[in-house]
Amino acid sequence: MKTIVAKFGGSSLSDGSHFIKVKNIIDADPDRRIIVASAPGKRFPEDIKVTDMLLDVYEKAISGGDFDPVLEAIKGRFRDIIIELNIDFPLSQEFDILREKIVNNPNRDYIASRGEYFNSRILAEYLGYTFVDPEWCVCFDEEGVPDDAMTRRAMRAALRPLKNAVVAGFYGADGSGRIHTLPRGGSDVTGSLAACAVNADLYENWTDVSGLLAADPNIVENPRSVEYLSFRELRTLSYMGASVLHTDAVLPASESGVSINIRNTEHPEDRGTTIVKKLPDGEKKYPVVGVAGRTGMSVIQIEKVMVSDGSGFSADILDILSRRNLPFEQCLTGIDTVTLVIRSDLLSGCRDDLLGEINDSLNPDYIGVTENLSMIAVVGERGTDSSDANVRVLQTLADNDIEISTVNQGAGKLNLLIGVPDEKYEEAVRAIYKTIEEEYSS
Amino acid sequence: MKTIVAKFGGSSLSDGSHFIKVKNIIDADPDRRIIVASAPGKRFPEDIKVTDMLLDVYEKAISGGDFDPVLEAIKGRFRDIIIELNIDFPLSQEFDILREKIVNNPNRDYIASRGEYFNSRILAEYLGYTFVDPEWCVCFDEEGVPDDAMTRRAMRAALRPLKNAVVAGFYGADGSGRIHTLPRGGSDVTGSLAACAVNADLYENWTDVSGLLAADPNIVENPRSVEYLSFRELRTLSYMGASVLHTDAVLPASESGVSINIRNTEHPEDRGTTIVKKLPDGEKKYPVVGVAGRTGMSVIQIEKVMVSDGSGFSADILDILSRRNLPFEQCLTGIDTVTLVIRSDLLSGCRDDLLGEINDSLNPDYIGVTENLSMIAVVGERGTDSSDANVRVLQTLADNDIEISTVNQGAGKLNLLIGVPDEKYEEAVRAIYKTIEEEYSS
Repeated sequence: MKTIVAKFGGSSLSDGSHFIKVKNIIDADPDRRIIVASAPGKRFPEDIKVTDMLLDVYEKAISGGDFDPVLEAIKGRFRDIIIELNIDFPLSQEFDILREKIVNNPNRDYIASRGEYFNSRILAEYLGYTFVDPEWCVCFDEEGVPDDAMTRRAMRAALRPLKNAVVAGFYGADGSGRIHTLPRGGSDVTGSLAACAVNADLYENWTDVSGLLAADPNIVENPRSVEYLSFRELRTLSYMGASVLHTDAVLPASESGVSINIRNTEHPEDRGTTIVKKLPDGEKKYPVVGVAGRTGMSVIQIEKVMVSDGSGFSADILDILSRRNLPFEQCLTGIDTVTLVIRSDLLSGCRDDLLGEINDSLNPDYIGVTENLSMIAVVGERGTDSSDANVRVLQTLADNDIEISTVNQGAGKLNLLIGVPDEKYEEAVRAIYKTIEEEYSS
Repeated sequence: MKTIVAKFGGSSLSDGSHFIKVKNIIDADPDRRIIVASAPGKRFPEDIKVTDMLLDVYEKAISGGDFDPVLEAIKGRFRDIIIELNIDFPLSQEFDILREKIVNNPNRDYIASRGEYFNSRILAEYLGYTFVDPEWCVCFDEEGVPDDAMTRRAMRAALRPLKNAVVAGFYGADGSGRIHTLPRGGSDVTGSLAACAVNADLYENWTDVSGLLAADPNIVENPRSVEYLSFRELRTLSYMGASVLHTDAVLPASESGVSINIRNTEHPEDRGTTIVKKLPDGEKKYPVVGVAGRTGMSVIQIEKVMVSDGSGFSADILDILSRRNLPFEQCLTGIDTVTLVIRSDLLSGCRDDLLGEINDSLNPDYIGVTENLSMIAVVGERGTDSSDANVRVLQTLADNDIEISTVNQGAGKLNLLIGVPDEKYEEAVRAIYKTIEEEYSS
């Protein structure tokens, strides 16, 4: 028997009708044995997520405000779900316990975690699955830092004996039983850790989009969703601003080689995006999976004759940035030149200071800054046919008279990074996307 | 009146018939007022340069060997020139002085410098120009290190009062009068220093080729010579192995803004190559001036998730190389990746050691080495039309199924650096050259 770990996000579990959709999805594949649930999300754009309501309760409680109306509203949301699903749940009893804790011992993370706790218990009851409280198996140290190794052991211990289970997302506890929430990535991380712990065949991440898009839908009209991409490609798209899973949620699965399938609860018939270590047999993957980018970049160009003969020069420059805690996006050293790409918002405060320090300590022949550039990543692990894809992309920009400031393709061949003026950014993304699409359809 | 400083290399002054050619060249333009002369070079491929013969004399002298036959042969070469030119020169007297020094106080640099000394005195006599001994105006400190600032003052003092002059190349002296030869670049440096000292309108460097070639003639059949190029382009071509003036000879002219014209003594009608700070009005310069490259490179690819978020990672890598005195040719940091291009001969001795150190201290997710790569520089300060030229070059490689390992174009837009497999290097250079040429002729 295979094991699929299926995580459902807040929008997928926002009300009773969504619980019904989720049950249909789970019942459609008996391999979906381990379910990870979020707290109820928004039911409509102006709605408030239950977790945000819980944080409001906490703020009111510690400042001596009246939190009961908000707590009642939260209780009402769960009551609606229970009634619509027609299940037994000791709602009043549970909310009495919660209220007592809020009054006597208000712990922010504990209160914030109750949305996942209630939602998961209700889902377990509705599905007839065993509820697994992450209080026992998502482990933190006494400082509240997640302990991944211990979590893996405890999760395995908790889940292996069970035929099926619902695990609450987002939180865990330290050795003394104190609740902590995950610092980044929330329930996506819980799902990823569970998938690793049980050596899942697949980690499904159910949300409200049909996977990752090949371009920003605010720039490109109706971009296609990406069918397969590698963990490295995902990381690049994510870094360049594509909204996807947080690194903390991807890393455990990536390290264990568990594929992640991003699916749409509203359209379970869509195949979504699968992030794979290795492409399944018979599936075709295209050399370029997507295009993403970041505006508001500055480029510092430093020239000094004989840089390449004494490469300590570049090391000295990076060292200056490092001591200032000034991160850079790219560094390209050529013959006699060093090009640094730095976010303009980070550079603006220290620009003159930095240039002065580089001038004083390294005495370059030339130093100049170009502002208002965008960096575009054409993402795809292209292997040997990279040349063709690169050429088509650069040709497209040339055809559109878009000036290229920098071109960077490292040996990994993961992405081609191209600098263009900010005012040409959207035009460039559209042109590149069109080129990629022509490749797909050919 | 304008001032041209004209330096003639050893092959241009190898025998009497060449002296006649040189006089014709000088007489053809009255602006050619300051002449810098080398020692007699080879008259035919198996011939020995006079400077090499002088060094042979020195070696024999200090090891107690019989140096007189070689010294006589050197004297014979100058005697042939004097006879052919039919001029007065106290040859026996001068060689008696030289022989006495060799016997009593053999100073290597002094002996090595006498080729320039005799040749320049003979040329001055033949032209009717004043002979200027660099012993007085090319200055070294007591450690034998050239003192450029003092040289500029002394050269200016020596040359300004003169209508015309012949300066011996290659050597100078320290404050106590001890002769030192220039460590690199020889007479080319003397010419460059002289051109700066007199604020020359042009520095002509007369040699045996009609300028710089746009590609290696061992790879490309009959490559065109480059008409104009910038100092930065020259530096790149030189770095990539094109045989041109040494950096030490270019830097003074570059800093003073004096253009350098490389000319062919055998074909004075050829315009040669002019290295300019600014292109003369009405002259067209092409976006790509040439292609050059280096084989035997290795590429180290290092991956670590979140490299870009903590750019100290790249600084740490460069620091490791710096502490090992291991120079790199290029460094490209992308998203999560660092690509280093290092000469294979430098890497081979410390490869496992280096990878081990990077692994131990930086714990990357992946580290790999690709050997047997060549780096090709497509050289040209292209400004805004770089995209077109880049595209054509990359398209050419794609059309020829040449796999590209790295692409690097920094903000300076001076060159596009491309990595290709060693076994495809010559094919790639030929293909790129053909593409450049089509651009020229269109």
